[in-house]
Amino acid sequence: MSTSVITKFMFVYKNEQRQVNHILKKALSKRKPETLYSPAYYIIESGGKRLRPMLVLLSAKAVGGKYSDAYYSGAAVELLHNFTLVHDDIMDNAEKRRGRLTLHVKYGDDTAILVGDSLLAVAYENLLKECKGNLKDILSDFTKGLVEVCEGQSLDKEYESRSSVSLKEYIKMIQKKTAAMLEMCCSIGARLGKGSPGEIKALSSFGRNIGIAFQIQDDLLDIIASEAEFGKIIGGDLVEGKKTFLLVKALEKAKGNDRSTLLRLVRSGGIKPDQVKKYKELYQKLGVIEDAKVEIKKYTSRALRSLSVLKNSEDREIFGWLADSLIKRIR
Amino acid sequence: MSTSVITKFMFVYKNEQRQVNHILKKALSKRKPETLYSPAYYIIESGGKRLRPMLVLLSAKAVGGKYSDAYYSGAAVELLHNFTLVHDDIMDNAEKRRGRLTLHVKYGDDTAILVGDSLLAVAYENLLKECKGNLKDILSDFTKGLVEVCEGQSLDKEYESRSSVSLKEYIKMIQKKTAAMLEMCCSIGARLGKGSPGEIKALSSFGRNIGIAFQIQDDLLDIIASEAEFGKIIGGDLVEGKKTFLLVKALEKAKGNDRSTLLRLVRSGGIKPDQVKKYKELYQKLGVIEDAKVEIKKYTSRALRSLSVLKNSEDREIFGWLADSLIKRIR
Repeated sequence: MSTSVITKFMFVYKNEQRQVNHILKKALSKRKPETLYSPAYYIIESGGKRLRPMLVLLSAKAVGGKYSDAYYSGAAVELLHNFTLVHDDIMDNAEKRRGRLTLHVKYGDDTAILVGDSLLAVAYENLLKECKGNLKDILSDFTKGLVEVCEGQSLDKEYESRSSVSLKEYIKMIQKKTAAMLEMCCSIGARLGKGSPGEIKALSSFGRNIGIAFQIQDDLLDIIASEAEFGKIIGGDLVEGKKTFLLVKALEKAKGNDRSTLLRLVRSGGIKPDQVKKYKELYQKLGVIEDAKVEIKKYTSRALRSLSVLKNSEDREIFGWLADSLIKRIR
Repeated sequence: MSTSVITKFMFVYKNEQRQVNHILKKALSKRKPETLYSPAYYIIESGGKRLRPMLVLLSAKAVGGKYSDAYYSGAAVELLHNFTLVHDDIMDNAEKRRGRLTLHVKYGDDTAILVGDSLLAVAYENLLKECKGNLKDILSDFTKGLVEVCEGQSLDKEYESRSSVSLKEYIKMIQKKTAAMLEMCCSIGARLGKGSPGEIKALSSFGRNIGIAFQIQDDLLDIIASEAEFGKIIGGDLVEGKKTFLLVKALEKAKGNDRSTLLRLVRSGGIKPDQVKKYKELYQKLGVIEDAKVEIKKYTSRALRSLSVLKNSEDREIFGWLADSLIKRIR
């Protein structure tokens, strides 16, 4: 990819991110009761990559629309995403998020439940501001994304207490938990930009596949990231006993003592934080970190292949850059 | 009101309730993952008056539509209502609901959070099945109802820890927490039935005012109901230190020792279950139970007055019957 395209795109990303951030803040500030909207503002202003809004905007643009056709919907998907973060963090006992205390640790579980609910409410509120003729399709996509993310989180929790989970089951879970929402961002964007059915399908497929790659990368970062950059506690998935790609794959490969060590984790539903290092070494020994990298590349290529339908080569390049930076991300 | 109208209406109520129940069950049964949808089914099949769906159906009918125009939306508002029950019960530490264990007591907080989220998702899913030309208005009304119910619950929780709450603040809180949703049921119904702006406004006003009466009645039932019939634990609001109509009014009226007794409750943020009887006697002494009854009548009359715009006298009678049975309800 040419350097000029990258430079141009990074400029566009920053600029459009600012537009979405403006709407996000407007959606929650100066709103009452403060006991509700001030914690909601806390999670939204804590940052994040704004990846999901960018997928909406880029998809709108790639099918011939404008970024500005999709600002409110971009804000809506980010609000929906933050709703899932707030509720998931309660269920996952997460202490840190984006380098700060999680909402439920700072404000208590009750407030966190209610703030999550409100973020979702405000998400629909914003989505409704933008849709025109294609309102029903867009709202159906959005609602389908919401249904699936709940189902995915439910499977994730269910798997924590299951003694074995196949790779196929794992992929199904992350498809719902993570990929469905990225797929939805792309389809909504493509609809807002008045894309053809073929374009909507292609971009949806991009979102779905990049979402799977994204989640496996997330599983990987739980082990190989540095805490300061990741913004979350390293090894949190191991502590919670989550059936990540690494654990599922490790269970598939391990024999003898290694297998016993892994089964101990599974039986206890997690490990103590001081054991994280030991399990990381085991993952390295079993080669599952490399396996994850291969899998991420596989789904990323699949995502990019589906974009051949896009007419403009610069749009394809931009999605390529985005996919690439997701793979190389450290947080 | 004539007995024949009442008999006819009770028959209609039962029948239409069955239609909505059928859709509700279809929306949640045979759906996977079971760890999510089976607890969701638990709360939905636990019954309830299905008051909110009936308001949708009756409003559609009263402006010239058919009950069957509104079945999915009726199911949607009931799902939304149950979403609020599940999350509120966690926050309010409620043990019983409709005579059974609350969802979070039976399945744990994590599942209850997620089931609540899913009920909301499925609510939107159902709402989208029915809307036609007026989709945007209906979804906006529904979303506004959702936003307000979150704000109302937040105020309710905030008030628990406040030393004083005025009657005006109390009314504002229940307007958001309870009345906004009943208002929304009526407006959605009126829109589905293709009512005129005047009819939509009148029915919305009916819903809002009956909603306020309904909540004051609910506050009253916490004290005067019998547990077996109420399905909830008597005095739960006192135990949680909730700023109900009774407590707010009692604080307004009490002097001397009585005032000290009430302030003790306020300062401790609630009382022990064995003190409920004592506070009930104090409420009786202060006359706030009678005050509540007067207030309920006031808002009910206001609700009924707004219906003068309805052309058909039988429709007005039906709403009258409904309002009357809400006032006289024991659960």
